[in-house]
Amino acid sequence: MSIDLRQHVIAVDLGGTNIRAALCDQEGRILKRHKQLTLAEEGPEAVINRIVDSIQHVMPEAGTAAVKAVAAACPGPLDPFIGVVMYAPNLPGWIDIPLRDILRQRLGLPVAIGNDANLAALGEQRYGAGRGMKDLVYVTISTGIGGGVILNNQLVLGMRGLAAEIGHTTLDIHADWTHAGVPGSFEGYASGTGIARLAHHKLRAQLHAQQERGAPLSRMVELAGGDIDAVTAKEVGEAARCNDPLALEIIAEVARIIGLGFVNLLHLYDPAIIVVGGSVSLMGDLLFEPVRRTVQQYAMLPYRDRPIVPAALGDDCGLLGAAALAFDLA
Amino acid sequence: MSIDLRQHVIAVDLGGTNIRAALCDQEGRILKRHKQLTLAEEGPEAVINRIVDSIQHVMPEAGTAAVKAVAAACPGPLDPFIGVVMYAPNLPGWIDIPLRDILRQRLGLPVAIGNDANLAALGEQRYGAGRGMKDLVYVTISTGIGGGVILNNQLVLGMRGLAAEIGHTTLDIHADWTHAGVPGSFEGYASGTGIARLAHHKLRAQLHAQQERGAPLSRMVELAGGDIDAVTAKEVGEAARCNDPLALEIIAEVARIIGLGFVNLLHLYDPAIIVVGGSVSLMGDLLFEPVRRTVQQYAMLPYRDRPIVPAALGDDCGLLGAAALAFDLA
Repeated sequence: MSIDLRQHVIAVDLGGTNIRAALCDQEGRILKRHKQLTLAEEGPEAVINRIVDSIQHVMPEAGTAAVKAVAAACPGPLDPFIGVVMYAPNLPGWIDIPLRDILRQRLGLPVAIGNDANLAALGEQRYGAGRGMKDLVYVTISTGIGGGVILNNQLVLGMRGLAAEIGHTTLDIHADWTHAGVPGSFEGYASGTGIARLAHHKLRAQLHAQQERGAPLSRMVELAGGDIDAVTAKEVGEAARCNDPLALEIIAEVARIIGLGFVNLLHLYDPAIIVVGGSVSLMGDLLFEPVRRTVQQYAMLPYRDRPIVPAALGDDCGLLGAAALAFDLA
Repeated sequence: MSIDLRQHVIAVDLGGTNIRAALCDQEGRILKRHKQLTLAEEGPEAVINRIVDSIQHVMPEAGTAAVKAVAAACPGPLDPFIGVVMYAPNLPGWIDIPLRDILRQRLGLPVAIGNDANLAALGEQRYGAGRGMKDLVYVTISTGIGGGVILNNQLVLGMRGLAAEIGHTTLDIHADWTHAGVPGSFEGYASGTGIARLAHHKLRAQLHAQQERGAPLSRMVELAGGDIDAVTAKEVGEAARCNDPLALEIIAEVARIIGLGFVNLLHLYDPAIIVVGGSVSLMGDLLFEPVRRTVQQYAMLPYRDRPIVPAALGDDCGLLGAAALAFDLA
């Protein structure tokens, strides 16, 4: 492979399960990629060694001289200004790890690190569903709800790089529960976990009624092998596609909540577009259509025309966001 | 008065009641000021003539040659990029008025316009309670709730300059009422109007109980001349300072709502400080203390240390924000 000198960057996506690394060009093409297990339980030093190893695997033949910069998407609250991972729930032992400086020293290259959801926003804006938009909100809905915001082509970071904690905003100050300390939070209601919780609640209530009437079990429970507690957002989506009434009811309830959460984001950030990623977004129009209708109903007039679209980069969003960050750095 | 050439700007604050203009220096000192009634009912042309007249009143002796730029803080949704007031509830006939270009042509000077709450944020950051902070959220709580956000020393505007519509975010998706179309909105709950509504509701409920027990009327009603419907947020604050139990209950309820609204703003913008202006903020520590306690209780750990302070510029916040905008422009 012939590579123009310093026309490329190396991107890393550090997850609780996998470490992924890629050699990328300015158009967001991945020229080489490498993936290995994180084995997070072995602690920060072992994980950092594997990160460096993955980077070496995608290094161009000409070596570091051909690389502009390296950037890594990392989980957990981190300070992008000083390059420190404060802590990461999925990475045991990661407390105040100065990952940027460690990698800089090990590689002899410029290095930056960023929050994975923030960098996914950057990836979608530079190379994905938000291409050409200078003002974008990205929301990822899977186990949790995270986000990243780009305004005037700049990542919205705030004082310590902790802005856009979309999942941890209250949508219901009167809720009788908290999630991560916040009552009635967006994540508590509408993450995959929240959707599953709502499904379990409704299925148990239905079970009671069914036992009285002898009605059949919901398709959701069938899909989960007969076990209510095994129902996840995935089974809710699949059953809804088969027109299971309870699954459709759950989707409608969740879509209203997500739509109202998006109204808040529109009114607070005034983005040109909302890009939605994460596993729950794979439900597609089944979810997007009622979300869009909720936004049409509740957003103030000047904000109603903003497209709400699925993410385009799939699992590569963090990697390509890191690539964009590395190019910005170089 | 001797004035260095082009060391000054002229700031305008266009309100529904008054037009205010000031000649300002880079330190935010007001060297001359002028104020006249807006007389909004006479329509845009008459109001614009009065704006120009107020500007002429504060013009330095050396004339426009001594002025770097002019900026105006205006109400209502406006597009700061093209300088157009889209509409303004308090200014009849103001629909898509290209105020920036009109003033530019009439004055022969660079002109910018900005949303009044956004510019108040800029004023507090440059010359007021947020001086030296590059990341700041400003919230004004009076008849309505508005706001402005500055991150990395830049006003957060969004695609059309409509970001930071803090008052129009839902804090209660299950509320059975909407305000400006948004269910359970921050403004609906915690603006002066919202506080008065809550007071009327509680006073009526109490009245019923009192009539049965023959207990005395709340101090709030006394302060309002015996008329429940005349109770405003001001009487709630005054009665609370006299330890009126119902007024204290209202303050506690409202402070929890404001505190949770601020938790959302901390998690979404990650500011170094929240500056609170507007007439309701004049309640002082009576309100600020329970708001701070709510934030301490519900904000995630890294955000809990951010100061929540009263605004410092009072009625001049819009004027001084316009001055800051004019200096940025020049």
